[in-house]
Amino acid sequence: MPAPPTITCFVRLLSRPFRRPNSFAPLSTHSNFRLFSAITHDMETVDTTSRLAKLRELMKREKVHVYVVPSEDAHSSEYICAADARRAFISGFTGSAGCAIVTQEKAALSTDGRYFNQAARQLDSNWELLKQGLPDVPTWQDWVAQQAEGGKNVGVDATIITAQQAKGLETRIKKKGGTGLLGISSNLIDEVWGADRPDRPNNPVMVLDEKYSGKEFPLKIEAVRKELENKKSPGFVVSMLDEIAWLFNLRGTDIPYNPVFFSYAFISPKSTTLYIDSSKLDEKAIAHLGSAVKIRPYHAIFDEIILLAQEFKAGQPETEPGTSEDGGKWLVSNKTSWALSKALGGEDSIEVIRSPLEEEKAVKNDTEKEGMKRCHIRDGAALTEYFAWLEDELLKGTSIDEVQAADRLEQIRSRGENFMGLSFDTISSTGPNAAVIHYKPEAGNCSVIDPKAIYLCDSGAQYLDGTTDTTRTLHFGDPTDMERKSYTLVLKGMIALDRAIFPKGTSGFALDILARQFLWSEGLDYRHGTGHGVGSFLVIDPLLVIQNVHEGPFGIGTRIQYSEVALSPGMFVSNEPGYYEDGSFGIRIENIIMVKEIKTNHNFGDRPYFGFERVTMVPMCRKLINVSLLTPAEIGWLNSYHAEVFEKTHGFFEEGSLALKWLKRETTPI
Amino acid sequence: MPAPPTITCFVRLLSRPFRRPNSFAPLSTHSNFRLFSAITHDMETVDTTSRLAKLRELMKREKVHVYVVPSEDAHSSEYICAADARRAFISGFTGSAGCAIVTQEKAALSTDGRYFNQAARQLDSNWELLKQGLPDVPTWQDWVAQQAEGGKNVGVDATIITAQQAKGLETRIKKKGGTGLLGISSNLIDEVWGADRPDRPNNPVMVLDEKYSGKEFPLKIEAVRKELENKKSPGFVVSMLDEIAWLFNLRGTDIPYNPVFFSYAFISPKSTTLYIDSSKLDEKAIAHLGSAVKIRPYHAIFDEIILLAQEFKAGQPETEPGTSEDGGKWLVSNKTSWALSKALGGEDSIEVIRSPLEEEKAVKNDTEKEGMKRCHIRDGAALTEYFAWLEDELLKGTSIDEVQAADRLEQIRSRGENFMGLSFDTISSTGPNAAVIHYKPEAGNCSVIDPKAIYLCDSGAQYLDGTTDTTRTLHFGDPTDMERKSYTLVLKGMIALDRAIFPKGTSGFALDILARQFLWSEGLDYRHGTGHGVGSFLVIDPLLVIQNVHEGPFGIGTRIQYSEVALSPGMFVSNEPGYYEDGSFGIRIENIIMVKEIKTNHNFGDRPYFGFERVTMVPMCRKLINVSLLTPAEIGWLNSYHAEVFEKTHGFFEEGSLALKWLKRETTPI
Repeated sequence: MPAPPTITCFVRLLSRPFRRPNSFAPLSTHSNFRLFSAITHDMETVDTTSRLAKLRELMKREKVHVYVVPSEDAHSSEYICAADARRAFISGFTGSAGCAIVTQEKAALSTDGRYFNQAARQLDSNWELLKQGLPDVPTWQDWVAQQAEGGKNVGVDATIITAQQAKGLETRIKKKGGTGLLGISSNLIDEVWGADRPDRPNNPVMVLDEKYSGKEFPLKIEAVRKELENKKSPGFVVSMLDEIAWLFNLRGTDIPYNPVFFSYAFISPKSTTLYIDSSKLDEKAIAHLGSAVKIRPYHAIFDEIILLAQEFKAGQPETEPGTSEDGGKWLVSNKTSWALSKALGGEDSIEVIRSPLEEEKAVKNDTEKEGMKRCHIRDGAALTEYFAWLEDELLKGTSIDEVQAADRLEQIRSRGENFMGLSFDTISSTGPNAAVIHYKPEAGNCSVIDPKAIYLCDSGAQYLDGTTDTTRTLHFGDPTDMERKSYTLVLKGMIALDRAIFPKGTSGFALDILARQFLWSEGLDYRHGTGHGVGSFLVIDPLLVIQNVHEGPFGIGTRIQYSEVALSPGMFVSNEPGYYEDGSFGIRIENIIMVKEIKTNHNFGDRPYFGFERVTMVPMCRKLINVSLLTPAEIGWLNSYHAEVFEKTHGFFEEGSLALKWLKRETTPI
Repeated sequence: MPAPPTITCFVRLLSRPFRRPNSFAPLSTHSNFRLFSAITHDMETVDTTSRLAKLRELMKREKVHVYVVPSEDAHSSEYICAADARRAFISGFTGSAGCAIVTQEKAALSTDGRYFNQAARQLDSNWELLKQGLPDVPTWQDWVAQQAEGGKNVGVDATIITAQQAKGLETRIKKKGGTGLLGISSNLIDEVWGADRPDRPNNPVMVLDEKYSGKEFPLKIEAVRKELENKKSPGFVVSMLDEIAWLFNLRGTDIPYNPVFFSYAFISPKSTTLYIDSSKLDEKAIAHLGSAVKIRPYHAIFDEIILLAQEFKAGQPETEPGTSEDGGKWLVSNKTSWALSKALGGEDSIEVIRSPLEEEKAVKNDTEKEGMKRCHIRDGAALTEYFAWLEDELLKGTSIDEVQAADRLEQIRSRGENFMGLSFDTISSTGPNAAVIHYKPEAGNCSVIDPKAIYLCDSGAQYLDGTTDTTRTLHFGDPTDMERKSYTLVLKGMIALDRAIFPKGTSGFALDILARQFLWSEGLDYRHGTGHGVGSFLVIDPLLVIQNVHEGPFGIGTRIQYSEVALSPGMFVSNEPGYYEDGSFGIRIENIIMVKEIKTNHNFGDRPYFGFERVTMVPMCRKLINVSLLTPAEIGWLNSYHAEVFEKTHGFFEEGSLALKWLKRETTPI
């Protein structure tokens, strides 16, 4: 029963025009706070000759031999706004991950396997493509170091590289005989870009009501202060945008799909400062923050922190009377920029930690848990309605392309309660396109959905009460034996992980093999992680984690980082094994699952044991299951899951509706 | 068909007198190279008052406030000879792991959960017991640092602590306000011990024929030189005794159960030096080493290496003309002592690496593989003969205690081909004793085996062609439901790991959950690792790896170190899940398995896939299996394994013999 939300902030329309292939209902724009979708780039080659010439002039002016252009913004964001897409501007390559490097003679772009084809298409002849991960191809850091051989220096905008990355890079440069890494204060790409550079978004923020956040923000800040006390630290700099949004119970729309806003925060034992353009704050937001939070301009953080650090060092903490002279070091997270770390006094003055907010944010409180479950039920009903419609249209012979289908899904979702926008680009892919793990259909240049092929849909939405992310793989005709076998092996892995019970302290690294074991036995595998964390009306990592590319707080996969954080009750994580046959088909099944304590029969060692609760409520594809490959226990799981899906979502549909018929058929016990 | 080996070196009898409870056949002493067993300590409290008083006098003389006594010898050996048992001498505590710390006022002994009871019994009132791993109990390093507060210093014999341990310890001491860590050249405990200290063994070494080693030693040294070349290093110091024995194809008897000998080795690009007492080398060994290996006295390494390092630093490598002036750093393994690292010039002059010999030694060549498989078949037949005899005697009402049983097993093994001694203290344990993971029955003070209780036997032997390590849990009467359920859950885990198929690059950390999953589902677990490596007529780690206690090159378990080394074809590893109910019973099932390449149906990504080959050939205990808990696939595994055990071992027994009847009964298909 969708009802309009009470939040009012400003209007932002979907950036992609709505297309109506059939008799779609009109798009209901009941919400006036709406996350916009990412800009759609075409895949054409860009002529970068004049851009590079201008950049090389600036490099001469700055006396820089090698210039590095990372993908991230000043907050280590995975998703960035158009104004921060500097690497895309200079190289022409628009994929989400990569690093550009320019010297007076050469230009190179390093990216990972997902993007080899796209980069080869988009880069012009000025560029060399470094295919990350292939044997004998240097990493971008090694390539940079090679260029610096013989006493050359390397420059980078110190605000868009983390202190840890800068340190590692500098070591390699010096090892090769380069002179070092220069942190340049202005960004040379921005200068080349000039007037053509898009404006930096400066959208208003909204207050997230406590009925959604579940915890007043001063209590969250108190927890940070406890950490400061433990470490005898004079202050903690928060630079990740999702951590700031979570901490203050505010949300924004500065970055596509991510309800965050440009800002920094600084918390000392006695004061809290939010660095944000004050034009972003309306009366409600100002009242929400109250007098305890100092508001300072976004860019002021650098100057103020230099001052603070100098005063602290001099033992005259006038600005911060609450800090003690014999205190320890400033705390920064491992995602904090080199520029901020330098402003605080550099390596000797800071302690780089895993942000305490990272785990606090990951472990949902009761309000957030209930919200996440509720919005997944609504979202599941939307997916059921969509799949039922899609199957019906395709079998009637309607021609629907991948983008038209995705738009229909967005339209259905947008009618749901608390809908605030999509949480990432919908992956709507038919046949061989489904084998492209991060496939992104382009309007007007995508495939028509083949009713005789696999259809893979990975999508999600932002709701006031939570964030969703679901993948289902369907077939509307007669799947091949290999398609059914692959789907069933993927499903068996998904079920094995879902049913896992493990003692406190177990990480997602240790669990990963449960999802892969059945594929491995047949010599099959998937080249991405099994699970990533999901925020509550916040940032998710919808990009499936490719080996060694992303860094994340916790997850399930074969990357050793996943051994660092144990899975704890209240964490929401995806469970999404897959299998991809290049040029033929792709399979992925993704549920969101919640870690919770499990009462076991014996409880050996008086340790708590944990397991998972199913959060996503969408049927599996019966047609793709080869029942003979399932054990009785797996069939039992499937029937119980389907009973739960039916129970929780059937109330959304009218008797006799297409969706209810489809739901009944797909959830009938095997 | 046991035949006497051709090797002749010297005679050493078993240290434990042979006891004959029944009509045992006489111990056949066909081998005159025999590893001796460890000294049996009684469990009585030792009065350390006068020892501590003497030590405290010496500490005053040396101006040391806190003195640390680690368990290891100068080679980081896990097993040590009696002369190196300094921690046991000063504290009275004889367990295999722990650290003693003495100040003028206090004395503390830190050990892990295996030894809490033993330590409490053995320590007198001078000592405080630090129960490692319990909440609020400091680690020994933290306890040391606390004692050093207020400008005190800490002393340690620099030859028996690794450079890495010393560095970590010094950091903590300084953080607490201590002045630092002193590496003392003489060992104060040895001085206290005086004339009562046992002689350091100086036994002759034997040459291991190429028909057992499979590779001439100069080829192994060439591989080390490749590593030196890659790293542009002037030399590598080998200090682990098993690495030296493996490298030179020599074996010794200086340490109980471990066929190693006291020595160091130094390999430069042009020369090889073995630091060993020349009295240990007979003509055959000298001829084997040839003129390319310089022989220098054992203790000479320190002086010579200081000289070498100084010459190298001065750019005048006269001693080592093969080394180049612009070379890199000396290579040492992470197990190398602080004293050796300091002799090489300290932190700036050395590169601490994972020894390249560690992995080379772990990956067996074809000769070693065949030897390992052959000796496990012979050893399996010995175990079958033993279990058949034990069951028969117990059911006849014969009273047999745990040590008498273990001796009988040793006697049966000793008749086997190529037998060289046991590979560790036999764990022969009845009823509640089986719940003590590292139980060691003491002659005259152990339990009589209860035919109505669980019997757990973990044992192994050294053969010229390999090393064995097997655990079986049996019941001679009527097991309880819980015993059968636990045994079956352990067996399911053992089978799941045995059947695992995984791509190249997978570590034992990732596989561990396969062995635990069924126990975890019931809230059960075991507090030790799942698998450890096994050498070929070399050192194994028979101590089950307890969390955070041991360090090892590779293994299967929940310790993060196990993620560092991928399992590679040719590695032999144990597969030994368990379950222990304190005061009641214990279960462990251990097979040795060999990593090998597996041909899969699909071979996705053109990566090799690996799996395991079963090496141990001893039946499971039918009586303890609850068949209703097994899947058809698990029953299939069991029947196929039993068929293989019968096929490979029945030839060792005469028709109509007790052993053959037992073997047939236990291997009949389920």
